[in-house]
Amino acid sequence: MRIALGIEYDGTDFFGWQRLTQGPSVQAKLEQALSRVAAHPVEVSCAGRTDAGVHGRCQVVHFDTEARRDMRGWMLGACSNLPASVAVLWAQPVLDSFHARYAARSRRYRYHILNRPVRAALEARYVTWERLPLDAERMHAAAQALLGEHDFSAFRALSCQAAHPRRTMLAVSVRREGEQVFVDIEANAFLHHMVRNIVGSLLMIGRHEQPIEWMAELLAGCDRQVAGPTAAASGLTFVGPRYETHWGLPQEVCLTGAGQ
Amino acid sequence: MRIALGIEYDGTDFFGWQRLTQGPSVQAKLEQALSRVAAHPVEVSCAGRTDAGVHGRCQVVHFDTEARRDMRGWMLGACSNLPASVAVLWAQPVLDSFHARYAARSRRYRYHILNRPVRAALEARYVTWERLPLDAERMHAAAQALLGEHDFSAFRALSCQAAHPRRTMLAVSVRREGEQVFVDIEANAFLHHMVRNIVGSLLMIGRHEQPIEWMAELLAGCDRQVAGPTAAASGLTFVGPRYETHWGLPQEVCLTGAGQ
Repeated sequence: MRIALGIEYDGTDFFGWQRLTQGPSVQAKLEQALSRVAAHPVEVSCAGRTDAGVHGRCQVVHFDTEARRDMRGWMLGACSNLPASVAVLWAQPVLDSFHARYAARSRRYRYHILNRPVRAALEARYVTWERLPLDAERMHAAAQALLGEHDFSAFRALSCQAAHPRRTMLAVSVRREGEQVFVDIEANAFLHHMVRNIVGSLLMIGRHEQPIEWMAELLAGCDRQVAGPTAAASGLTFVGPRYETHWGLPQEVCLTGAGQ
Repeated sequence: MRIALGIEYDGTDFFGWQRLTQGPSVQAKLEQALSRVAAHPVEVSCAGRTDAGVHGRCQVVHFDTEARRDMRGWMLGACSNLPASVAVLWAQPVLDSFHARYAARSRRYRYHILNRPVRAALEARYVTWERLPLDAERMHAAAQALLGEHDFSAFRALSCQAAHPRRTMLAVSVRREGEQVFVDIEANAFLHHMVRNIVGSLLMIGRHEQPIEWMAELLAGCDRQVAGPTAAASGLTFVGPRYETHWGLPQEVCLTGAGQ
Protein backbone atom coordinates (compact mmCIF):
# COMPACT_ATOMS: atom_id res chain seq x y z
CA MET A 1 0.00 0.00 0.00
CA ARG A 2 0.99 3.61 -0.48
CA ILE A 3 1.26 5.99 2.48
CA ALA A 4 1.69 9.76 2.54
CA LEU A 5 3.43 11.54 5.42
CA GLY A 6 3.69 15.18 6.51
CA ILE A 7 7.26 15.98 7.63
CA GLU A 8 8.57 18.90 9.70
CA TYR A 9 12.32 19.50 9.90
CA ASP A 10 14.94 21.95 11.02
CA GLY A 11 17.35 22.04 8.09
CA THR A 12 20.23 23.74 9.93
CA ASP A 13 22.34 20.65 10.45
CA PHE A 14 21.47 18.83 7.20
CA PHE A 15 23.08 18.89 3.77
CA GLY A 16 19.57 19.35 2.42
CA TRP A 17 16.69 16.99 1.75
CA GLN A 18 18.20 14.63 -0.78
CA ARG A 19 20.09 11.47 0.14
CA LEU A 20 23.73 12.13 -0.74
CA THR A 21 27.11 10.74 0.18
CA GLN A 22 28.57 14.08 1.30
CA GLY A 23 26.64 14.52 4.54
CA PRO A 24 23.49 13.93 6.56
CA SER A 25 20.20 14.41 4.71
CA VAL A 26 16.60 14.53 5.89
CA GLN A 27 15.65 11.89 3.31
CA ALA A 28 18.24 9.39 4.59
CA LYS A 29 17.19 9.89 8.23
CA LEU A 30 13.53 9.45 7.30
CA GLU A 31 14.15 6.34 5.18
CA GLN A 32 16.22 4.77 7.98
CA ALA A 33 13.44 5.46 10.50
CA LEU A 34 10.68 4.13 8.22
CA SER A 35 12.72 1.08 7.28
CA ARG A 36 12.99 0.21 10.95
CA VAL A 37 9.22 0.56 11.45
CA ALA A 38 8.44 -1.38 8.24
CA ALA A 39 11.14 -4.01 8.86
CA HIS A 40 12.04 -3.72 5.15
CA PRO A 41 13.96 -1.06 3.16
CA VAL A 42 11.79 1.99 2.43
CA GLU A 43 12.37 4.67 -0.20
CA VAL A 44 10.44 7.95 -0.09
CA SER A 45 9.54 10.47 -2.80
CA CYS A 46 9.05 14.08 -1.69
CA ALA A 47 7.01 17.03 -2.98
CA GLY A 48 9.96 19.40 -3.11
CA ARG A 49 13.68 18.87 -2.41
CA THR A 50 15.15 21.56 -0.17
CA ASP A 51 18.77 22.79 -0.05
CA ALA A 52 21.22 22.64 2.85
CA GLY A 53 20.00 24.77 5.77
CA VAL A 54 16.44 25.19 4.43
CA HIS A 55 13.64 24.13 6.79
CA GLY A 56 10.42 22.21 6.21
CA ARG A 57 7.11 23.09 7.86
CA CYS A 58 5.06 20.42 6.09
CA GLN A 59 7.02 18.56 3.45
CA VAL A 60 4.97 15.71 1.97
CA VAL A 61 6.39 12.32 0.99
CA HIS A 62 4.96 9.01 -0.10
CA PHE A 63 6.31 5.48 0.12
CA ASP A 64 5.15 1.94 -0.61
CA THR A 65 5.11 -0.83 1.93
CA GLU A 66 3.74 -4.30 2.55
CA ALA A 67 4.03 -3.89 6.31
CA ARG A 68 0.75 -3.64 8.19
CA ARG A 69 0.83 -0.80 10.70
CA ASP A 70 -1.90 1.59 11.67
CA MET A 71 -1.31 5.26 10.77
CA ARG A 72 -0.55 6.17 14.39
CA GLY A 73 2.07 3.41 14.39
CA TRP A 74 3.82 4.83 11.31
CA MET A 75 3.75 8.35 12.74
CA LEU A 76 4.94 7.59 16.26
CA GLY A 77 7.23 4.75 15.22
CA ALA A 78 9.02 6.94 12.70
CA CYS A 79 9.24 9.85 15.18
CA SER A 80 10.87 7.71 17.82
CA ASN A 81 13.54 6.63 15.30
CA LEU A 82 14.21 10.14 13.97
CA PRO A 83 16.64 12.75 15.31
CA ALA A 84 15.12 15.68 17.27
CA SER A 85 15.31 17.90 14.18
CA VAL A 86 12.83 15.79 12.14
CA ALA A 87 9.23 14.84 13.01
CA VAL A 88 6.38 13.06 11.22
CA LEU A 89 3.26 15.24 11.62
CA TRP A 90 0.74 12.77 10.17
CA ALA A 91 0.40 9.59 8.13
CA GLN A 92 -2.37 8.88 5.68
CA PRO A 93 -3.13 5.95 3.33
CA VAL A 94 -3.37 7.11 -0.29
CA LEU A 95 -4.28 5.63 -3.66
CA ASP A 96 -1.42 4.05 -5.60
CA SER A 97 -1.94 6.78 -8.21
CA PHE A 98 -0.91 9.46 -5.69
CA HIS A 99 2.63 10.82 -6.11
CA ALA A 100 3.93 13.41 -3.62
CA ARG A 101 5.77 15.28 -6.38
CA TYR A 102 3.62 14.85 -9.48
CA ALA A 103 0.26 15.27 -7.75
CA ALA A 104 1.31 18.55 -6.07
CA ARG A 105 -0.59 21.46 -7.61
CA SER A 106 1.48 24.16 -5.91
CA ARG A 107 4.31 24.72 -3.43
CA ARG A 108 4.52 27.41 -0.78
CA TYR A 109 7.65 28.94 0.73
CA ARG A 110 8.17 31.53 3.44
CA TYR A 111 11.31 33.65 3.71
CA HIS A 112 11.85 35.27 7.13
CA ILE A 113 14.05 38.36 7.44
CA LEU A 114 15.05 39.91 10.77
CA ASN A 115 15.45 43.60 9.93
CA ARG A 116 17.22 45.49 12.71
CA PRO A 117 20.68 46.88 13.53
CA VAL A 118 21.65 43.82 15.61
CA ARG A 119 21.95 40.16 14.56
CA ALA A 120 19.56 37.52 15.95
CA ALA A 121 20.32 35.66 19.17
CA LEU A 122 16.89 34.03 19.60
CA GLU A 123 15.57 32.04 16.61
CA ALA A 124 18.83 32.66 14.74
CA ARG A 125 18.43 29.32 12.91
CA TYR A 126 15.22 30.48 11.26
CA VAL A 127 15.94 34.00 10.06
CA THR A 128 18.21 35.90 7.73
CA TRP A 129 19.52 39.11 9.24
CA GLU A 130 19.34 42.34 7.25
CA ARG A 131 20.97 45.27 9.02
CA LEU A 132 19.87 48.04 6.64
CA PRO A 133 16.26 49.28 6.79
CA LEU A 134 13.98 47.50 4.31
CA ASP A 135 10.99 49.12 2.63
CA ALA A 136 8.63 46.12 2.72
CA GLU A 137 5.86 47.91 0.80
CA ARG A 138 8.31 48.63 -2.00
CA MET A 139 9.38 44.97 -2.05
CA HIS A 140 5.75 43.88 -2.15
CA ALA A 141 4.96 46.19 -5.07
CA ALA A 142 8.02 44.96 -7.01
CA ALA A 143 7.21 41.30 -6.38
CA GLN A 144 3.79 41.58 -8.02
CA ALA A 145 5.54 41.62 -11.42
CA LEU A 146 6.29 37.92 -10.88
CA LEU A 147 2.64 36.81 -10.88
CA GLY A 148 1.50 34.57 -13.71
CA GLU A 149 3.39 32.24 -16.06
CA HIS A 150 6.92 33.36 -16.96
CA ASP A 151 10.37 32.16 -17.93
CA PHE A 152 12.15 32.45 -14.55
CA SER A 153 15.69 32.02 -15.94
CA ALA A 154 16.74 35.27 -14.22
CA PHE A 155 16.27 33.51 -10.87
CA ARG A 156 17.47 30.03 -11.84
CA ALA A 157 20.65 28.50 -10.39
CA LEU A 158 23.28 27.25 -12.85
CA SER A 159 22.94 23.84 -11.22
CA CYS A 160 19.19 23.66 -11.96
CA GLN A 161 18.20 20.38 -13.64
CA ALA A 162 14.61 21.29 -14.56
CA ALA A 163 13.51 20.49 -18.13
CA HIS A 164 12.41 24.06 -18.80
CA PRO A 165 12.40 27.43 -16.94
CA ARG A 166 8.69 28.26 -17.17
CA ARG A 167 6.79 28.39 -13.89
CA THR A 168 3.47 29.90 -12.80
CA MET A 169 3.62 32.26 -9.82
CA LEU A 170 0.29 32.05 -7.99
CA ALA A 171 0.82 34.43 -5.07
CA VAL A 172 3.59 36.55 -3.63
CA SER A 173 3.50 39.01 -0.74
CA VAL A 174 5.97 40.92 1.40
CA ARG A 175 4.85 42.31 4.73
CA ARG A 176 6.41 43.71 7.88
CA GLU A 177 5.56 42.83 11.51
CA GLY A 178 7.77 45.01 13.70
CA GLU A 179 11.38 43.96 13.08
CA GLN A 180 10.29 40.93 11.03
CA VAL A 181 9.75 40.94 7.26
CA PHE A 182 8.02 37.92 5.70
CA VAL A 183 8.10 36.98 2.01
CA ASP A 184 5.36 34.44 1.23
CA ILE A 185 5.45 32.89 -2.19
CA GLU A 186 3.42 30.21 -3.97
CA ALA A 187 3.98 28.78 -7.45
CA ASN A 188 3.05 25.61 -9.30
CA ALA A 189 6.72 24.61 -8.90
CA PHE A 190 10.12 26.23 -8.38
CA LEU A 191 13.48 26.19 -10.14
CA HIS A 192 16.64 25.53 -8.12
CA HIS A 193 17.40 28.49 -5.79
CA MET A 194 14.43 30.37 -7.28
CA VAL A 195 12.99 31.66 -3.98
CA ARG A 196 16.38 32.68 -2.59
CA ASN A 197 17.33 34.40 -5.86
CA ILE A 198 14.02 36.29 -5.95
CA VAL A 199 14.51 37.36 -2.31
CA GLY A 200 18.09 38.46 -3.05
CA SER A 201 16.78 40.85 -5.69
CA LEU A 202 13.86 41.99 -3.52
CA LEU A 203 16.34 42.86 -0.76
CA MET A 204 18.16 45.23 -3.14
CA ILE A 205 14.84 46.90 -3.98
CA GLY A 206 13.93 47.05 -0.28
CA ARG A 207 17.22 48.83 0.48
CA HIS A 208 16.47 51.32 -2.34
CA GLU A 209 19.47 50.12 -4.34
CA GLN A 210 17.25 49.32 -7.31
CA PRO A 211 13.93 50.76 -8.53
CA ILE A 212 10.63 48.91 -8.11
CA GLU A 213 10.53 48.25 -11.87
CA TRP A 214 13.82 46.32 -11.66
CA MET A 215 12.01 43.08 -10.80
CA ALA A 216 9.99 43.19 -14.04
CA GLU A 217 13.15 44.04 -16.01
CA LEU A 218 15.08 41.13 -14.49
CA LEU A 219 12.25 38.73 -15.28
CA ALA A 220 12.02 39.93 -18.90
CA GLY A 221 15.82 39.79 -19.35
CA CYS A 222 16.13 36.10 -18.36
CA ASP A 223 19.75 36.71 -17.30
CA ARG A 224 20.83 35.27 -13.94
CA GLN A 225 24.06 37.36 -14.09
CA VAL A 226 22.12 40.61 -13.69
CA ALA A 227 19.84 39.70 -10.76
CA GLY A 228 20.71 40.02 -7.05
CA PRO A 229 22.75 37.51 -5.04
CA THR A 230 21.22 34.30 -3.63
CA ALA A 231 19.74 35.08 -0.19
CA ALA A 232 20.94 32.92 2.74
CA ALA A 233 19.34 29.51 3.34
CA SER A 234 18.56 29.98 7.05
CA GLY A 235 15.58 32.33 6.46
CA LEU A 236 13.84 29.91 4.08
CA THR A 237 11.13 27.44 5.07
CA PHE A 238 9.29 25.15 2.69
CA VAL A 239 5.75 25.64 4.03
CA GLY A 240 4.60 22.71 1.92
CA PRO A 241 2.85 21.52 -1.23
CA ARG A 242 -0.88 21.64 -1.93
CA TYR A 243 -3.00 18.89 -3.51
CA GLU A 244 -6.50 18.43 -4.86
CA THR A 245 -8.89 17.68 -2.00
CA HIS A 246 -9.93 14.33 -3.55
CA TRP A 247 -6.69 12.72 -2.35
CA GLY A 248 -8.05 13.00 1.20
CA LEU A 249 -4.96 14.56 2.74
CA PRO A 250 -5.00 16.85 5.84
CA GLN A 251 -6.37 20.31 5.18
CA GLU A 252 -3.02 22.06 5.59
CA VAL A 253 -1.84 20.52 2.29
CA CYS A 254 -5.13 20.79 0.41
CA LEU A 255 -6.26 23.32 -2.16
CA THR A 256 -9.24 24.93 -0.50
CA GLY A 257 -11.27 28.05 -1.14
CA ALA A 258 -9.40 29.96 1.55
CA GLY A 259 -5.75 30.94 1.03
CA GLN A 260 -5.72 30.32 -2.72
CA MET B 1 29.16 56.67 33.85
CA ARG B 2 26.31 54.16 34.06
CA ILE B 3 25.02 52.41 30.95
CA ALA B 4 21.92 50.24 30.48
CA LEU B 5 21.77 47.49 27.84
CA GLY B 6 18.95 45.41 26.35
CA ILE B 7 20.05 41.78 25.97
CA GLU B 8 18.55 38.97 23.86
CA TYR B 9 19.72 35.39 24.42
CA ASP B 10 19.00 31.80 23.58
CA GLY B 11 19.31 30.06 26.95
CA THR B 12 19.49 26.50 25.57
CA ASP B 13 23.25 26.05 25.93
CA PHE B 14 23.73 28.09 29.13
CA PHE B 15 23.60 27.13 32.80
CA GLY B 16 21.37 30.16 33.27
CA TRP B 17 22.02 33.88 33.59
CA GLN B 18 24.17 34.01 36.69
CA ARG B 19 27.97 33.73 36.62
CA LEU B 20 28.78 30.38 38.19
CA THR B 21 31.67 27.97 38.28
CA GLN B 22 29.64 24.98 37.05
CA GLY B 23 29.14 26.01 33.42
CA PRO B 24 28.74 28.76 30.84
CA SER B 25 26.45 31.64 31.85
CA VAL B 26 25.02 34.56 29.90
CA GLN B 27 26.34 36.97 32.52
CA ALA B 28 29.93 35.72 32.22
CA LYS B 29 29.85 35.91 28.40
CA LEU B 30 28.42 39.43 28.54
CA GLU B 31 30.93 40.63 31.14
CA GLN B 32 33.81 39.20 29.10
CA ALA B 33 32.58 40.97 25.96
CA LEU B 34 32.00 44.31 27.72
CA SER B 35 35.35 44.09 29.51
CA ARG B 36 37.04 43.77 26.13
CA VAL B 37 35.21 46.82 24.77
CA ALA B 38 35.84 48.85 27.95
CA ALA B 39 39.46 47.66 28.33
CA HIS B 40 38.78 47.24 32.05
CA PRO B 41 36.87 44.60 34.04
CA VAL B 42 33.09 45.13 33.85
CA GLU B 43 30.43 43.71 36.16
CA VAL B 44 26.75 43.83 35.21
CA SER B 45 23.54 43.77 37.27
CA CYS B 46 20.43 42.36 35.62
CA ALA B 47 16.69 42.91 36.01
CA GLY B 48 15.89 39.24 36.48
CA ARG B 49 18.10 36.17 36.68
CA THR B 50 16.92 33.30 34.51
CA ASP B 51 17.47 29.57 35.00
CA ALA B 52 19.31 27.11 32.77
CA GLY B 53 17.57 26.77 29.40
CA VAL B 54 15.35 29.85 29.85
CA HIS B 55 15.57 32.48 27.09
CA GLY B 56 15.70 36.27 27.20
CA ARG B 57 13.84 38.50 24.75
CA CYS B 58 14.89 41.80 26.36
CA GLN B 59 16.78 41.31 29.61
CA VAL B 60 18.04 44.64 30.96
CA VAL B 61 21.39 45.14 32.67
CA HIS B 62 23.41 48.12 33.85
CA PHE B 63 27.13 48.57 34.41
CA ASP B 64 29.54 51.35 35.34
CA THR B 65 32.52 52.35 33.24
CA GLU B 66 35.06 55.09 32.81
CA ALA B 67 35.68 54.14 29.18
CA ARG B 68 34.45 56.64 26.61
CA ARG B 69 32.58 54.88 23.82
CA ASP B 70 29.50 56.01 21.97
CA MET B 71 26.36 53.85 22.45
CA ARG B 72 26.73 52.28 19.01
CA GLY B 73 30.26 51.30 19.97
CA TRP B 74 29.10 49.52 23.14
CA MET B 75 26.33 47.74 21.28
CA LEU B 76 28.28 46.57 18.23
CA GLY B 77 31.54 46.05 20.14
CA ALA B 78 29.84 43.80 22.68
CA CYS B 79 27.93 41.91 19.94
CA SER B 80 31.12 41.15 18.03
CA ASN B 81 32.66 39.66 21.21
CA LEU B 82 29.61 37.61 22.17
CA PRO B 83 28.67 34.07 21.05
CA ALA B 84 25.90 33.78 18.42
CA SER B 85 23.36 32.97 21.16
CA VAL B 86 23.66 36.39 22.86
CA ALA B 87 23.10 39.87 21.35
CA VAL B 88 23.02 43.43 22.69
CA LEU B 89 19.84 45.07 21.32
CA TRP B 90 20.55 48.62 22.48
CA ALA B 91 22.76 50.69 24.81
CA GLN B 92 21.61 53.78 26.65
CA PRO B 93 23.32 56.13 29.15
CA VAL B 94 21.37 56.29 32.44
CA LEU B 95 21.53 58.24 35.70
CA ASP B 96 23.74 56.75 38.42
CA SER B 97 20.55 56.27 40.45
CA PHE B 98 19.22 53.74 37.89
CA HIS B 99 19.48 50.09 38.89
CA ALA B 100 18.34 47.39 36.44
CA ARG B 101 16.91 45.28 39.26
CA TYR B 102 15.65 47.78 41.84
CA ALA B 103 14.20 50.27 39.35
CA ALA B 104 12.17 47.59 37.54
CA ARG B 105 8.46 48.07 38.22
CA SER B 106 7.41 44.77 36.67
CA ARG B 107 8.70 41.70 34.82
CA ARG B 108 7.03 39.89 31.93
CA TYR B 109 7.41 36.25 30.96
CA ARG B 110 5.99 34.18 28.12
CA TYR B 111 5.58 30.41 28.26
CA HIS B 112 5.18 28.73 24.87
CA ILE B 113 3.51 25.30 24.64
CA LEU B 114 3.33 23.25 21.44
CA ASN B 115 0.10 21.28 21.84
CA ARG B 116 -0.16 18.48 19.28
CA PRO B 117 0.34 14.71 19.07
CA VAL B 118 3.89 15.01 17.71
CA ARG B 119 6.97 16.63 19.27
CA ALA B 120 8.51 19.77 17.74
CA ALA B 121 11.19 19.56 15.06
CA LEU B 122 11.19 23.26 14.10
CA GLU B 123 11.71 25.75 16.97
CA ALA B 124 12.17 22.86 19.41
CA ARG B 125 14.51 25.03 21.52
CA TYR B 126 11.73 27.51 22.26
CA VAL B 127 8.72 25.38 23.12
CA THR B 128 7.52 22.81 25.61
CA TRP B 129 5.63 19.95 24.01
CA GLU B 130 2.29 18.84 25.45
CA ARG B 131 0.84 15.81 23.70
CA LEU B 132 -2.58 15.78 25.38
CA PRO B 133 -5.20 18.33 24.26
CA LEU B 134 -5.20 21.48 26.40
CA ASP B 135 -8.28 23.55 27.13
CA ALA B 136 -6.69 27.01 26.94
CA GLU B 137 -9.88 28.84 27.94
CA ARG B 138 -10.08 26.74 31.08
CA MET B 139 -6.43 27.52 31.87
CA HIS B 140 -7.09 31.23 31.30
CA ALA B 141 -10.10 31.21 33.64
CA ALA B 142 -8.13 29.39 36.35
CA ALA B 143 -5.14 31.74 36.06
CA GLN B 144 -7.24 34.81 36.85
CA ALA B 145 -7.26 33.72 40.52
CA LEU B 146 -3.59 34.75 40.65
CA LEU B 147 -4.24 38.44 39.99
CA GLY B 148 -3.41 40.88 42.78
CA GLU B 149 -1.09 40.65 45.78
CA HIS B 150 -0.70 37.17 47.29
CA ASP B 151 1.64 34.88 49.16
CA PHE B 152 2.92 32.73 46.25
CA SER B 153 4.54 30.02 48.43
CA ALA B 154 2.55 27.35 46.56
CA PHE B 155 4.61 28.13 43.45
CA ARG B 156 7.96 28.87 45.10
CA ALA B 157 11.01 26.63 44.64
CA LEU B 158 12.71 25.28 47.76
CA SER B 159 15.90 26.96 46.55
CA CYS B 160 14.25 30.41 46.47
CA GLN B 161 16.29 33.05 48.31
CA ALA B 162 13.71 35.86 48.28
CA ALA B 163 13.13 37.67 51.58
CA HIS B 164 9.39 37.03 51.51
CA PRO B 165 6.87 35.20 49.28
CA ARG B 166 4.44 38.06 48.57
CA ARG B 167 4.25 39.22 44.97
CA THR B 168 1.72 41.24 42.97
CA MET B 169 0.41 39.61 39.81
CA LEU B 170 -0.45 42.36 37.32
CA ALA B 171 -1.64 40.38 34.31
CA VAL B 172 -1.95 36.76 33.24
CA SER B 173 -3.48 35.30 30.10
CA VAL B 174 -3.60 31.95 28.32
CA ARG B 175 -4.53 31.84 24.67
CA ARG B 176 -4.40 29.39 21.78
CA GLU B 177 -3.20 30.05 18.21
CA GLY B 178 -3.67 26.80 16.29
CA GLU B 179 -1.28 24.24 17.85
CA GLN B 180 0.42 26.89 19.99
CA VAL B 181 -0.67 27.87 23.50
CA PHE B 182 0.87 31.01 25.04
CA VAL B 183 0.89 31.87 28.74
CA ASP B 184 1.73 35.56 29.23
CA ILE B 185 2.35 36.67 32.77
CA GLU B 186 3.40 39.95 34.40
CA ALA B 187 4.12 40.61 38.08
CA ASN B 188 6.08 43.16 40.07
CA ALA B 189 8.62 40.40 40.66
CA PHE B 190 8.82 36.59 40.67
CA LEU B 191 9.94 33.93 43.13
CA HIS B 192 12.35 31.22 41.97
CA HIS B 193 10.61 28.84 39.48
CA MET B 194 7.34 30.74 40.02
CA VAL B 195 6.32 30.94 36.35
CA ARG B 196 7.24 27.32 35.62
CA ASN B 197 5.43 26.11 38.75
CA ILE B 198 2.32 28.11 37.84
CA VAL B 199 2.41 26.69 34.29
CA GLY B 200 2.86 23.16 35.65
CA SER B 201 -0.40 23.52 37.58
CA LEU B 202 -2.20 25.24 34.69
CA LEU B 203 -1.25 22.29 32.45
CA MET B 204 -3.06 19.92 34.82
CA ILE B 205 -6.16 22.13 34.67
CA GLY B 206 -5.84 22.36 30.87
CA ARG B 207 -5.79 18.54 30.65
CA HIS B 208 -8.93 18.41 32.86
CA GLU B 209 -7.01 16.60 35.61
CA GLN B 210 -7.96 19.33 38.10
CA PRO B 211 -10.94 21.71 38.33
CA ILE B 212 -10.68 25.40 37.46
CA GLU B 213 -10.97 26.29 41.15
CA TRP B 214 -7.81 24.32 41.94
CA MET B 215 -5.58 27.32 41.15
CA ALA B 216 -7.28 29.46 43.83
CA GLU B 217 -7.07 26.55 46.30
CA LEU B 218 -3.37 26.05 45.66
CA LEU B 219 -2.68 29.75 46.11
CA ALA B 220 -4.61 29.87 49.38
CA GLY B 221 -2.94 26.70 50.68
CA CYS B 222 0.64 28.05 50.31
CA ASP B 223 1.93 24.46 49.99
CA ARG B 224 4.41 23.74 47.19
CA GLN B 225 3.96 19.97 47.74
CA VAL B 226 0.37 20.06 46.51
CA ALA B 227 0.82 22.10 43.29
CA GLY B 228 1.74 20.68 39.86
CA PRO B 229 5.27 19.82 38.72
CA THR B 230 7.71 22.46 37.46
CA ALA B 231 7.17 22.93 33.70
CA ALA B 232 10.22 22.51 31.43
CA ALA B 233 12.62 25.44 30.97
CA SER B 234 12.68 25.40 27.14
CA GLY B 235 9.23 26.96 26.73
CA LEU B 236 10.02 29.93 28.97
CA THR B 237 11.21 33.33 27.74
CA PHE B 238 11.86 36.35 29.96
CA VAL B 239 10.19 39.01 27.81
CA GLY B 240 11.76 41.68 29.99
CA PRO B 241 11.34 44.19 32.80
CA ARG B 242 9.45 47.47 32.64
CA TYR B 243 10.56 50.83 34.07
CA GLU B 244 9.13 54.29 34.65
CA THR B 245 9.37 56.34 31.47
CA HIS B 246 11.49 59.05 33.15
CA TRP B 247 14.58 56.81 32.93
CA GLY B 248 14.53 57.40 29.18
CA LEU B 249 14.85 53.74 28.17
CA PRO B 250 13.53 52.28 24.87
CA GLN B 251 9.77 51.93 24.74
CA GLU B 252 9.82 48.11 24.84
CA VAL B 253 10.95 48.26 28.50
CA CYS B 254 8.83 51.26 29.55
CA LEU B 255 5.57 51.40 31.45
CA THR B 256 3.24 53.06 29.00
CA GLY B 257 -0.50 53.50 28.76
CA ALA B 258 -0.79 50.58 26.37
CA GLY B 259 -0.22 47.03 27.57
CA GLN B 260 -0.38 47.81 31.30
